[in-house]
Amino acid sequence: MTSIDMITAARTRLNGRARRTPLLSSPFLDELAGRRLFVKAECLQHSGSFKFRGGWSALSGLEPAVRKRGVIAFSSGNHAQGVALAAKLHGVPSVIVMPSDAPKLKIDNTRAFGAEVVLYNRATEDRDAIGAKLAEARGLTLIRPFDEPLVIAGQGTVGLEIAEQALEEGIAAADVLVPCGGGGLSSGVALALEAKAPGFRVRSCEPERFDDTARSLASGTFERNATLSGSICDAIITPEPGKLTFPVLKRLAGPGLVVTDDEALHAMALAFKRLKIVIEPGGAVALAAALFHGRDIEGDQVIAVASGGNVDTEVFETALSRFGES
Amino acid sequence: MTSIDMITAARTRLNGRARRTPLLSSPFLDELAGRRLFVKAECLQHSGSFKFRGGWSALSGLEPAVRKRGVIAFSSGNHAQGVALAAKLHGVPSVIVMPSDAPKLKIDNTRAFGAEVVLYNRATEDRDAIGAKLAEARGLTLIRPFDEPLVIAGQGTVGLEIAEQALEEGIAAADVLVPCGGGGLSSGVALALEAKAPGFRVRSCEPERFDDTARSLASGTFERNATLSGSICDAIITPEPGKLTFPVLKRLAGPGLVVTDDEALHAMALAFKRLKIVIEPGGAVALAAALFHGRDIEGDQVIAVASGGNVDTEVFETALSRFGES
Repeated sequence: MTSIDMITAARTRLNGRARRTPLLSSPFLDELAGRRLFVKAECLQHSGSFKFRGGWSALSGLEPAVRKRGVIAFSSGNHAQGVALAAKLHGVPSVIVMPSDAPKLKIDNTRAFGAEVVLYNRATEDRDAIGAKLAEARGLTLIRPFDEPLVIAGQGTVGLEIAEQALEEGIAAADVLVPCGGGGLSSGVALALEAKAPGFRVRSCEPERFDDTARSLASGTFERNATLSGSICDAIITPEPGKLTFPVLKRLAGPGLVVTDDEALHAMALAFKRLKIVIEPGGAVALAAALFHGRDIEGDQVIAVASGGNVDTEVFETALSRFGES
Repeated sequence: MTSIDMITAARTRLNGRARRTPLLSSPFLDELAGRRLFVKAECLQHSGSFKFRGGWSALSGLEPAVRKRGVIAFSSGNHAQGVALAAKLHGVPSVIVMPSDAPKLKIDNTRAFGAEVVLYNRATEDRDAIGAKLAEARGLTLIRPFDEPLVIAGQGTVGLEIAEQALEEGIAAADVLVPCGGGGLSSGVALALEAKAPGFRVRSCEPERFDDTARSLASGTFERNATLSGSICDAIITPEPGKLTFPVLKRLAGPGLVVTDDEALHAMALAFKRLKIVIEPGGAVALAAALFHGRDIEGDQVIAVASGGNVDTEVFETALSRFGES
């Protein structure tokens, strides 16, 4: 399993490759949140989300002879782009298995990063089976989106940066709100903070009806979502918590936070107006929790990770038209 | 006049106050620009534009007894917000004289930063006369938007950061494209680059019909705009180049670049899609020049400053609806 040493090693491999994304803030958002609110803007990361970190960490950690044969990943879009870009920069082929209902921008970008995209039906087909079959047939290495120690280590570098940037801002303790699908980012950040900033506690954030992690944290065991479609938060919809990630969250994270789709859209509009950043719905759930669920958060400061910004124009326009004047 | 020593001193005063904004890039934008393109995202600065730097530089440079009486500024909105926020953080009063047709967001934010806002008619009233009268009556210090050495020094800190960040990216020479109204930012950046990165050359960027600096650089003397209304690029519309700033640009800057309003809107949509940042029209003219006027730019790399992001929702929606799919 991922250790703090693996995270710091991933950071060394990511040095000069990943962007150290800024920690943003606005007095207007502080007022809405009722406390000092900081936003770790991973939407500004290469490929438009934190997933480039895990992708690069995984590819750069492979044996060169193995890497050369290429990699395969399955993803609704952000892991797809992160792995595709990391593969392109390493000069190796990539095959990405994506649901056919993934946002068009994500599919287009994954192809533009040079990947071969294989589409599947999210409701009727098993992406794991498709991925495993292709991997075997072509000698590709499967890069799992979250249940992979090197990927978790890469995402954990977000936590190392948060620890440093919080120190620069004079923040000694805070809840750190993290959008949570399979839990790669939240568990990686939790491990980094455990080692580097023990006053900080990760809180997983999810959309209503897809709150498997919050329910699993509450019950102490793996809970599944009843459905996998019907959310605008496409980036963070998974059947259940990850096998490797959930034990980390169970040990280190506070209770999960759950927001509505409208709260995510509202947070997107406020990030547009107050922070001048573009966040996708799934990337906005932590900011939404900080802004609209303050009673469930502890302390005078909160840090929310804005995990990605790969949103189709029409979804963004919906956010602005509903909440642009608020 | 502003010297490199004043710029480095301003940087010391701004340390821990201004954000070191990131230098962003996207392979998709490189392809459109036909060269490596970097964007200095000053829209992520406090108050939503680079103007906070000049405002803080000016206020922090005043004698405490003078500063205590308060400051006054006239501005279409970004200087207004920058000065108002700097005054608020210093705990001193501010009066801001703004045109009545300034974007609502800018007027609202200036008030929210605690400033007293005085509106005037841009077509029929003289903002300088209004400002001078109020300053005298209340003992306020006038903070000019660009023809003020301490303000230019503050804006010049953008140039210091560009020099450092370009070094980190391995860029030894480039045209540096800067949105230009009165020329405070472009002249400050030019002075900083002259001292710290002599292989770099500033290029002023303006919208069509409000290209006083480009025409002045071409003729070698002060040229005026025929009109001051009718542009979407409200942030960078001034009657003519600044008395202090133009001699600097004449000595150090290359020929001015001029873009259309539609090109600015198109650049905003591409910054949304590819960089995940929000830019206002006036803040997008340099990126627009980099993307759509590549034949007028020299070298394999170009750096464009995205100077501000304080845009009303409906203008942003216009950019997305016209150019969101391109």
